[in-house]
Amino acid sequence: MDMQELTANIRKALEALHPFNATPGNGTTRLPFTREARGAVEHLKAYMAEAGLAVREDEAGNVIGVLEGEDSSLPALVMGSHYDTVINGGNFDGQAGIVAGVEIARLFRANRVSLKRNFVVIAFCDEEGMRFSTGYFGSRSWMGEVDEAYLHTFKDKDGISVFEAMKSYGLDPAALPNARWDMNDVRAFIELHIEQGPVLDAENIEVGLVDCIVGIRRYMVTVSGRPDHAGTTPMDMRMDAVEAASKVFSKIPDWARARGDGSVATTGFLKVTPGGINIVPEEVQFSIDIRSRNRESLLELTDRIKKELDITTKANGTSWKMEEKLTVEPLHLSPAMLDIMEESCTTRGYSYRRMVSGAGHDALAIGQHVETVMVFTPSKNGRSHCPVEWTEYSDVAKATSVIYDLVIGMQ
Amino acid sequence: MDMQELTANIRKALEALHPFNATPGNGTTRLPFTREARGAVEHLKAYMAEAGLAVREDEAGNVIGVLEGEDSSLPALVMGSHYDTVINGGNFDGQAGIVAGVEIARLFRANRVSLKRNFVVIAFCDEEGMRFSTGYFGSRSWMGEVDEAYLHTFKDKDGISVFEAMKSYGLDPAALPNARWDMNDVRAFIELHIEQGPVLDAENIEVGLVDCIVGIRRYMVTVSGRPDHAGTTPMDMRMDAVEAASKVFSKIPDWARARGDGSVATTGFLKVTPGGINIVPEEVQFSIDIRSRNRESLLELTDRIKKELDITTKANGTSWKMEEKLTVEPLHLSPAMLDIMEESCTTRGYSYRRMVSGAGHDALAIGQHVETVMVFTPSKNGRSHCPVEWTEYSDVAKATSVIYDLVIGMQ
Repeated sequence: MDMQELTANIRKALEALHPFNATPGNGTTRLPFTREARGAVEHLKAYMAEAGLAVREDEAGNVIGVLEGEDSSLPALVMGSHYDTVINGGNFDGQAGIVAGVEIARLFRANRVSLKRNFVVIAFCDEEGMRFSTGYFGSRSWMGEVDEAYLHTFKDKDGISVFEAMKSYGLDPAALPNARWDMNDVRAFIELHIEQGPVLDAENIEVGLVDCIVGIRRYMVTVSGRPDHAGTTPMDMRMDAVEAASKVFSKIPDWARARGDGSVATTGFLKVTPGGINIVPEEVQFSIDIRSRNRESLLELTDRIKKELDITTKANGTSWKMEEKLTVEPLHLSPAMLDIMEESCTTRGYSYRRMVSGAGHDALAIGQHVETVMVFTPSKNGRSHCPVEWTEYSDVAKATSVIYDLVIGMQ
Repeated sequence: MDMQELTANIRKALEALHPFNATPGNGTTRLPFTREARGAVEHLKAYMAEAGLAVREDEAGNVIGVLEGEDSSLPALVMGSHYDTVINGGNFDGQAGIVAGVEIARLFRANRVSLKRNFVVIAFCDEEGMRFSTGYFGSRSWMGEVDEAYLHTFKDKDGISVFEAMKSYGLDPAALPNARWDMNDVRAFIELHIEQGPVLDAENIEVGLVDCIVGIRRYMVTVSGRPDHAGTTPMDMRMDAVEAASKVFSKIPDWARARGDGSVATTGFLKVTPGGINIVPEEVQFSIDIRSRNRESLLELTDRIKKELDITTKANGTSWKMEEKLTVEPLHLSPAMLDIMEESCTTRGYSYRRMVSGAGHDALAIGQHVETVMVFTPSKNGRSHCPVEWTEYSDVAKATSVIYDLVIGMQ
């Protein structure tokens, strides 16, 4: 395999996608069912066809390219990622995984590799959910998980529903059920993606073999006390919501560390009412986002938070309630596929590590139903969803070559 | 002394002030240099004159009533409080102290008490500082502490300066220096005020003898870290501003309690940037308001906060800065005057306690220059600055009778 040529092809393909962008000069912005999305889709069709794939756009706006194997009745190996971006995002998130798949198909043809199974590359529509505050639209439609109510429920900031957006984009929303594939026809799903975190870059490792997509528990906690004059109210006559709440949320990071399994916890949102410097705070809202490969850690951290809230609110007469905002169970990825890729890394001389994905991806949705694996490429300084998002093209090529070996190993 | 008659007079006088109010049906709103203030001032002039005082309005909008003593050249005993209110405030804050003074003068005349010194009652303008985000305008003008720059610097929400507001109200701002009294002409200052806190009401005590107005240290602290993805950034690679900040502000109340001297501390304002549930917080701003009768407690609590900020920010690579927003030194009130009033309470059979004032008052400004004392009346449920603000008229009468005894004791 000519790694220089592969690197050059990947670079060329990623750069060719860049112009389909609503914010030139300020990162990449490609929301679903827009002019930019249409441009990218037409470009991807041509790019896949030129690489030798049989291409079609499905009813969900996904672009599907098929490289036929010897026996098309066998369950196919599917590789994919998304072509949409966040607002002012980067040029790698999602797109690198599509390009990797197409370049692998090109290599199979160039190297006259004969595959038994079909090798399918899918460029998914609307993974980010940026426009309609959703997510995984393309991959979930492909699995038959999006119903008509969804199309009418979710609207963008201008009040345009998914249904309306699809129509003006040239898709027939009524035909969406036709996008569904029977998952029995899929042998496994593979996604290459940028890490979007600092680990590989900090540790100077070339390939991340993702063995788990973390589970998530997301809560909004409200602690309610009583507003009082901050000067005239003695400490033992206060119901200070900030005191009771902060005695809990200040400790959550330490509790996450103490799990020793890479669990992370974040309080990123805080709101105090009434918020006056000289008023004992009446109410605090704070968010908790806990992620872990271990379901037990998610449950025990949640339990500990609840117990401590009981203690700190009882101590000063405040009260608390907790609203569950998001629940995702940890998804363990295919050990057999990871073993094949680990062997490939060793053979090719690439540094690698097994790791978790702290973010969700199309692989998280698809992995609920099909044997799945992910490969991460290093994100420079861990940055993503911003214009400076960067992965070395040579690193994308290395991960691509490892997946090339995986696909061959799974025939 | 007929306490029923005194109570009735106080009630009548307070109720007569109520109509000078911009928000009928929703508490009392009487901002300085407004139609409501003008109405209250004209009413107060007539009320003071009817009680036998020689009345004039000074250049700062204060209403001054004088009951002449035998020797007008002796330094006078001055009693006063303010006639302005906050927005949607109550009918006792400030006003009760004016009415008490006038009713004491009425009693001196009725009882043919011959005073050596002049007894002066002042209804001060704009103590609350609500309109121009200031405070103590009337009392500070009376002491010659307000210069012309002040008049032009502070503006209300409509951009009207104090200077302009005074002019359209019928005062000559250029003449403000004439409002100044020589503090050598003042023997002592006395202020009756509602407690605005829960202590007297909770302990069922009738008279609060205020021996100290607390000192204040007010800070705005900024802790700066780095925004990162809450899912993909391991705990040991984060610079979480909320973690570093909350490990400090969650403990400040306990440190205040540990002083054992009634010190109070409050974090009433919190702001997190960027504030996303799934983003490691980059920056936190939080307020600290510390109040204590002991300067040492103010200094040591501040010092401890700084040391702990050093420790928690060093631990995760964040940084901090602290902006000083307000510094007030504790003001210890006249022990001799407190002793006279304590004896009066004992003689009259009133329950009483010595206590601090956790809020500032005109007495705080004036007490910097003149021997000063304050008397608190119970605030029902500790509530003030709101429509439900309430003190029993009989409790105002009790405190008034104690001050009556004090004035006689100081001839």
